[in-house]
Amino acid sequence: MSFSVAVSGATGYAGGEVLRLLAQHPEAEVRTVTAHSSAGRPLGEAAPHLRSLAHLEVRETTAESLAGHDVVFLALPHGASGEIAAQLPEGTLVIDAGADHRLTDQAAWERFYGEGYAGSWPYGLPELLISPDGAKQREALRGVRRVAVPGCYPTSAQLALAPGFAAGLLEPDDVVIVAASGLSGAGKSLKPHLLGAEAMSSMSPYGVGGVHRHIPEMEQGLSGAAGRPVSVSFTPTLAPMPRGILTTATARVAPGVGAAELRAAWERAYDAEPFVHLLPEGRWPATKSVQGSNHAELQLALDEHVGRAIVTCAIDNLAKGTAGGAIQSMNLALGLPETTGLTTEGLAP
Amino acid sequence: MSFSVAVSGATGYAGGEVLRLLAQHPEAEVRTVTAHSSAGRPLGEAAPHLRSLAHLEVRETTAESLAGHDVVFLALPHGASGEIAAQLPEGTLVIDAGADHRLTDQAAWERFYGEGYAGSWPYGLPELLISPDGAKQREALRGVRRVAVPGCYPTSAQLALAPGFAAGLLEPDDVVIVAASGLSGAGKSLKPHLLGAEAMSSMSPYGVGGVHRHIPEMEQGLSGAAGRPVSVSFTPTLAPMPRGILTTATARVAPGVGAAELRAAWERAYDAEPFVHLLPEGRWPATKSVQGSNHAELQLALDEHVGRAIVTCAIDNLAKGTAGGAIQSMNLALGLPETTGLTTEGLAP
Amino acid sequence: MSFSVAVSGATGYAGGEVLRLLAQHPEAEVRTVTAHSSAGRPLGEAAPHLRSLAHLEVRETTAESLAGHDVVFLALPHGASGEIAAQLPEGTLVIDAGADHRLTDQAAWERFYGEGYAGSWPYGLPELLISPDGAKQREALRGVRRVAVPGCYPTSAQLALAPGFAAGLLEPDDVVIVAASGLSGAGKSLKPHLLGAEAMSSMSPYGVGGVHRHIPEMEQGLSGAAGRPVSVSFTPTLAPMPRGILTTATARVAPGVGAAELRAAWERAYDAEPFVHLLPEGRWPATKSVQGSNHAELQLALDEHVGRAIVTCAIDNLAKGTAGGAIQSMNLALGLPETTGLTTEGLAP
Amino acid sequence: MSFSVAVSGATGYAGGEVLRLLAQHPEAEVRTVTAHSSAGRPLGEAAPHLRSLAHLEVRETTAESLAGHDVVFLALPHGASGEIAAQLPEGTLVIDAGADHRLTDQAAWERFYGEGYAGSWPYGLPELLISPDGAKQREALRGVRRVAVPGCYPTSAQLALAPGFAAGLLEPDDVVIVAASGLSGAGKSLKPHLLGAEAMSSMSPYGVGGVHRHIPEMEQGLSGAAGRPVSVSFTPTLAPMPRGILTTATARVAPGVGAAELRAAWERAYDAEPFVHLLPEGRWPATKSVQGSNHAELQLALDEHVGRAIVTCAIDNLAKGTAGGAIQSMNLALGLPETTGLTTEGLAP
Repeated sequence: MSFSVAVSGATGYAGGEVLRLLAQHPEAEVRTVTAHSSAGRPLGEAAPHLRSLAHLEVRETTAESLAGHDVVFLALPHGASGEIAAQLPEGTLVIDAGADHRLTDQAAWERFYGEGYAGSWPYGLPELLISPDGAKQREALRGVRRVAVPGCYPTSAQLALAPGFAAGLLEPDDVVIVAASGLSGAGKSLKPHLLGAEAMSSMSPYGVGGVHRHIPEMEQGLSGAAGRPVSVSFTPTLAPMPRGILTTATARVAPGVGAAELRAAWERAYDAEPFVHLLPEGRWPATKSVQGSNHAELQLALDEHVGRAIVTCAIDNLAKGTAGGAIQSMNLALGLPETTGLTTEGLAP
Repeated sequence: MSFSVAVSGATGYAGGEVLRLLAQHPEAEVRTVTAHSSAGRPLGEAAPHLRSLAHLEVRETTAESLAGHDVVFLALPHGASGEIAAQLPEGTLVIDAGADHRLTDQAAWERFYGEGYAGSWPYGLPELLISPDGAKQREALRGVRRVAVPGCYPTSAQLALAPGFAAGLLEPDDVVIVAASGLSGAGKSLKPHLLGAEAMSSMSPYGVGGVHRHIPEMEQGLSGAAGRPVSVSFTPTLAPMPRGILTTATARVAPGVGAAELRAAWERAYDAEPFVHLLPEGRWPATKSVQGSNHAELQLALDEHVGRAIVTCAIDNLAKGTAGGAIQSMNLALGLPETTGLTTEGLAP
Repeated sequence: MSFSVAVSGATGYAGGEVLRLLAQHPEAEVRTVTAHSSAGRPLGEAAPHLRSLAHLEVRETTAESLAGHDVVFLALPHGASGEIAAQLPEGTLVIDAGADHRLTDQAAWERFYGEGYAGSWPYGLPELLISPDGAKQREALRGVRRVAVPGCYPTSAQLALAPGFAAGLLEPDDVVIVAASGLSGAGKSLKPHLLGAEAMSSMSPYGVGGVHRHIPEMEQGLSGAAGRPVSVSFTPTLAPMPRGILTTATARVAPGVGAAELRAAWERAYDAEPFVHLLPEGRWPATKSVQGSNHAELQLALDEHVGRAIVTCAIDNLAKGTAGGAIQSMNLALGLPETTGLTTEGLAP
Repeated sequence: MSFSVAVSGATGYAGGEVLRLLAQHPEAEVRTVTAHSSAGRPLGEAAPHLRSLAHLEVRETTAESLAGHDVVFLALPHGASGEIAAQLPEGTLVIDAGADHRLTDQAAWERFYGEGYAGSWPYGLPELLISPDGAKQREALRGVRRVAVPGCYPTSAQLALAPGFAAGLLEPDDVVIVAASGLSGAGKSLKPHLLGAEAMSSMSPYGVGGVHRHIPEMEQGLSGAAGRPVSVSFTPTLAPMPRGILTTATARVAPGVGAAELRAAWERAYDAEPFVHLLPEGRWPATKSVQGSNHAELQLALDEHVGRAIVTCAIDNLAKGTAGGAIQSMNLALGLPETTGLTTEGLAP
């Protein structure tokens, strides 16, 4: 079963990673790549690492250039994808790596993004526990023709905490999450603080104080798992590495909950998953271990001193956090084995 | 006023940074360097960056080799410094960069370090607010002959939160702190995960779940500022950079506390300090800005959504976090201007 | 056609990369992994990035543990592989990633390695021009049962210069090569200068002055291409990155040779190659573009001012420079399509 | 002796480093900082690491804003400094960190820079041997009112090879130099390949083939040392670190020259120098060792196999390679001790 694909935003980091993974997908045939900045030039100039696709000419991103493919990936700024998506046929599988279709709550959308709510699509995080009864998001993705790819931080935060909320082991208020992202998380923007000379050896926070746009998405998912509203304090930081997210997610445990009970809940949630795992005790997640792979590593501890569960999660922000998750959802939507074309081996050292 | 100095642990990272700063101190004369591993060899072999001290022969660390100096720095594993210190004359200024003399509570010491409590010394964090009345630790350091240098994480965590506790603006329970440290924080240990090939591009947590030895030190200092017991959840992570700590410290605000009130408390605490500052609004701390300097950068935000104050703090773990703070305390102990030989300029880019 | 594989030195960087690639090879079934340091433990402890192989128990490296597989990879210190190889059946495909079987000249071997010359095996660099008539090494690898994997520096140096020598455009004496390697090139040795805190932000040379063991290998290959003896000055440097080699190879051009003629020779040599390419004019190789891939990027310039051709080449030292090249040779030896299981897409950014 | 200083290009990397060093210079008083992009804003916004100068308002770069200071530093694009300098009084010490006044040969200037030759100024490399009789450039800098700061690559290349040329031990043709520079060497330009996500883990060449503008400067200095024309092949590469240059400079040795003779020449040249040293045998330069310091580390080897001397040199491109060298020259020009305000201690790890 071979299918044709178009990728917009092909010269950005998300679009580039989608292409890197598609180049290794046995059924995908990349026919069209679009991007504003490099239109008319061969892809190899802007993305020299994509050797097998180097000859493709970059086209402008329009409904016309994207039409006529079985699958269309949108890796565009928010607002832009909603607009383009509305012009694509219903039968085309459209996978939006942007933020336009992630939130079901229009008010939450408008608080963080302003005007232009475009409605929500099936949420592309197959392993997400979506209710206290143990149901997962996977089933909602089979055969669909629209997928909203989760944000990178929400992927790690929800994978980290959903098992505890679904099992009723965590208190829903006062969740505190601090995460460190590699520089590609900030996109290919030409800003001084993202220059290598500045960013190497530097860690810094940004978007502090309840203003990061990924907060409503985290709360949406965790509230679903918990079956009641969960509120999250989230602080993102920029780390001196190209890729990777390390999330430290903490929540107060419900009265009487012990370490073994916690551990059992996470094991139960993920033991059969191909791409999400609780590490054996004594080992901790590292972004290097999942570099370039679709794997999420988790570990947890109970700090009895203060009554908090601390769950850490490492993913590759561009792979499992964006493009890998997108292709995993694509596989489900197309009826392919979910793991097709994806790897669990990280590029290390 | 010139004085003679001996530095033990001279080939480790803490000892090396003490020497780097002493080489630039106008009054210090480094006469003796000691270390077990390189004894009998010139310092330049193990520490090629210390050009002006390269000719010094490394000696074994003994009470004899350290005797006869005005100032002795101990940069040794815990246990070792307590033993050596007991053999040095009372009139010698002994500055312990290790953990042996930081805690006033023997039970807390024994819980985290085991046997061998050696008593506490004046705590070398001059800017620390030590009570709700606004007193600072500075006064307790003038003219002393023993100084316990704070841990690097506790330096940043206490500087971050003490103003809010001293002003009664923060709730004392459920403080959540997540910090990222550069690799030098793990010392010069030959462990695989510290190899450059492994550590570059990787972030990982360690010591999770209330087990890190710096927790009682943070709680000791913050409880002092608050005038009541403060409990802390602390998660350290290792970041792919040689130096620097970025601490994200969050605490629930007391009822009715607003952003302006918070800001005023931190400004009041630090506006006259030479080495600790709240940044102007809109700018965030970065470890690169304080690389090699004795400066601590702070910024804060109030997340009204969840009722938490989020304070971020960047220091150089080896400079302000260890050796710089040690020399600042030394200046106070010797009656020199507190800033002598220290810089507020970071090495950037 | 599925085949069974054993990999020795599985917890080192070369062995780990062989395993990472085998895990993605459609025909390979990894049955046995061996290593001295982790014997008896699951592979996942020492190599957490190899998720799908994490459950394999590491065994001691012996002729017994390696016996009974279709393919055996040796990633061992020199001397060790020669000894083991002698005990493996003739019908087993043995691929030695070490130095034991690379040199045809016993005297050259002994000058650089000392006692213990074990004879030479077919040299695993398929794209290497081996004579002025344009023949390549590829043909010598089909169906063989022993392969000597080239060194990482020689892979890049020979790919860089062989086309010019085979075409008679370069002078055979006074070749000057300077190369920068990522830290994994130094192996997983626990040496202070390889610690992340030391190695980040640092570049340094080593093995300067005609003493590096890869020199005779470079001269062997280039002399073959030239049809007369080529002598090489080689300076390796260590660069602050986990992977990658950037080689700058320069040679004086023969009288009258011009830029177009040079360019044509390299294009002719590599245009049909799947894994080695001369970049379009105006673009330069970058190790990031080939990270994790089996691709070699080349570019050249003629410095008319001094009469030297300057050829730069970027490879991933662990992939094309070691494990990728090994698997490419394995494919040839087994009669599989040469590109099976290998990628031309680099992991970037 | 206190003096007032103005620094143009203050928000760039060269200007920023001049300011970092001036902030630690006991006699300098920075009164004026100028830059186009940040004019009207406090310096602390664009250069947060310069804490003690953070309050200075950035002004436009004009002859007026620079007038009235004892010393003016120009850190401007070529062309711009020549124009401004012509408007400054003869009695002002003007130190040009740009390329406008480095070359004595107008034809060489025009070949590499085009129109606008502005004449040459005393060349700010005090340790440079300027003739076979052992004279150094130092004497030509005492009391001057104009200084041309050397380029960063030429600083390392000339320090590396001048002793051999002055002593008649090296052949003047076919010098081959390959150097690796940290990213700050490319300036604060907002170009995609300089983004941290792209540049980390990547090495790449640029300006290959005799086109780099630093070539005539290297040839000018080495020809002076040799007393006859020296020609240089130079290949620069970009290394994944913020600062530092590692230069590998090789030249054929004259007939009969041996290793001891070579070593003696370099020792003789630099043993009395405060900032340039030949390392003891067995140790190699590392950019980390000289990070932030004004020190240059050298080591050499004779490759008897091919008859080439290989000299490696590590400097900090922004310190000894630009701003440190500039301040060293300033000290000489003002009659201060040459080492005032400069350090030989590198920031390591």
